[in-house]
Amino acid sequence: MRLDLAYDGTGFSGWARQPGLRTVQGVLEDGLATVLRSSDLPHLVVAGRTDAGVHARGQVVHLDVETDRLGALRARDGADATTVLVRRLAGVLPGDLVVRAARLAPAGFDARFSALSRRYAYRVCDTSTRRDPLARAFVLWHRQRLDLGAMAEAARTLVGLHDFAAYCRARPDATTVRTLLRFDWRRPEGGPDEGLLVADVEADAFCHSMVRSLVGACLAVGEGRRDPSWPAEVLAERRRASTVVPAHGLTLEQVVYPPDDELAVRAETTRARRVVPPA
Amino acid sequence: MRLDLAYDGTGFSGWARQPGLRTVQGVLEDGLATVLRSSDLPHLVVAGRTDAGVHARGQVVHLDVETDRLGALRARDGADATTVLVRRLAGVLPGDLVVRAARLAPAGFDARFSALSRRYAYRVCDTSTRRDPLARAFVLWHRQRLDLGAMAEAARTLVGLHDFAAYCRARPDATTVRTLLRFDWRRPEGGPDEGLLVADVEADAFCHSMVRSLVGACLAVGEGRRDPSWPAEVLAERRRASTVVPAHGLTLEQVVYPPDDELAVRAETTRARRVVPPA
Repeated sequence: MRLDLAYDGTGFSGWARQPGLRTVQGVLEDGLATVLRSSDLPHLVVAGRTDAGVHARGQVVHLDVETDRLGALRARDGADATTVLVRRLAGVLPGDLVVRAARLAPAGFDARFSALSRRYAYRVCDTSTRRDPLARAFVLWHRQRLDLGAMAEAARTLVGLHDFAAYCRARPDATTVRTLLRFDWRRPEGGPDEGLLVADVEADAFCHSMVRSLVGACLAVGEGRRDPSWPAEVLAERRRASTVVPAHGLTLEQVVYPPDDELAVRAETTRARRVVPPA
Repeated sequence: MRLDLAYDGTGFSGWARQPGLRTVQGVLEDGLATVLRSSDLPHLVVAGRTDAGVHARGQVVHLDVETDRLGALRARDGADATTVLVRRLAGVLPGDLVVRAARLAPAGFDARFSALSRRYAYRVCDTSTRRDPLARAFVLWHRQRLDLGAMAEAARTLVGLHDFAAYCRARPDATTVRTLLRFDWRRPEGGPDEGLLVADVEADAFCHSMVRSLVGACLAVGEGRRDPSWPAEVLAERRRASTVVPAHGLTLEQVVYPPDDELAVRAETTRARRVVPPA
């Protein structure tokens, strides 16, 4: 099954189940066990493991469910099993975690390895007259006015296939090579983010804290402390960028998958370990 | 001075200062006393006294400030006193209460009595796939799909000058006659409220819990339990409508004032008690 999720990360210690901590995976697996009347916890595979405090509107997971457990989800009004599952989950999950949709996954679907890309947004309010207390859980309030043009210029220089070691928390056995597909800054007129500064950041995959490091480098540019050329210099020299912006401005907005008949092939391709491209 | 405020009502026991309770007035007056270095609490006059749990993006208050206290608000960068006041308030107020702007009020300005009208929005999500945990503090989640057309039809019948006793919590010495200037239901495409059902409700003034009673009557229509003609029948018969919807879906969006040279006259007019119009 494929589930589409949204959550407010404020009250969670990130995605991954950890003993004694409230995590998205932990709460969702417990809720699924209740609704499916299963004594074993279901095992969830997630598209994007979000850090503590990071939100999601477009998170995707998959899990295996025994056919007879699904068949047991019958509703008086004749709704199908996946509809009943979503309804019952709404009854047992807390308000900060919503399963928006459930469906039988197409053959070959793997929430993590079939994904083509993940798209995050980072939201900043740099205008005191625009601060909205109702949005404070997912918008960074910045005291200083930021230079949109300089930030957009800096962001563009980072797009492409690179070793993002400078913007990743190091892990011994993992590559830090990623394809940054999109990194834009905009100040929307109208719409839900009117007046905010919004970064749209899309990549095939992200390393730990990568988006928040990239955003941190751009804020230094926006404040005028660094030139727009600086973030790319940091990237090239692979020296560790120090500033990681707060988690609460970050939201996983979308996970992009290929058409159904390419899902299995994509999963195989992704499993092959990424390598540093020849210079 | 005139202050423009926004707040998340979740953590407040409404507007009015009450002993032992956290209220918007209490927190704001305390913050102002700190910033103005005054041992006396300032006295705030508010445009719309919001109930416990109700939010505001466009709340307005006025207060008297001694000239020398304002003059003491000097900034190294030469910013004027009102700008410094907003900055310092941002430093002492909690995240759920924001003073967005401060200015010297024009002559005759009274935040309460000069106002021409108050505009509230009530937000409902009736589509489970649209539930956004990041907006759950200010959107009512409704399990049943609602009929927008029927609700809009019902709302239109209530617009005008009426005795809203059926939709007000009774108070012995207060009139319940109000002019409902606008009562629309819409389901926005695009924008911050995409996919939600939003009521825009504007009146010269509101009685206690009036918006939430009006919305409650429309939800009964939207669910098909009542005909669109029913809310107007309740109004005409002055029988008490029983359903008051939860506070958290309600936000004071705007207070409308006349041009500066009409402020004083408007305040005088409003102070004259409203009376029931001849039938």
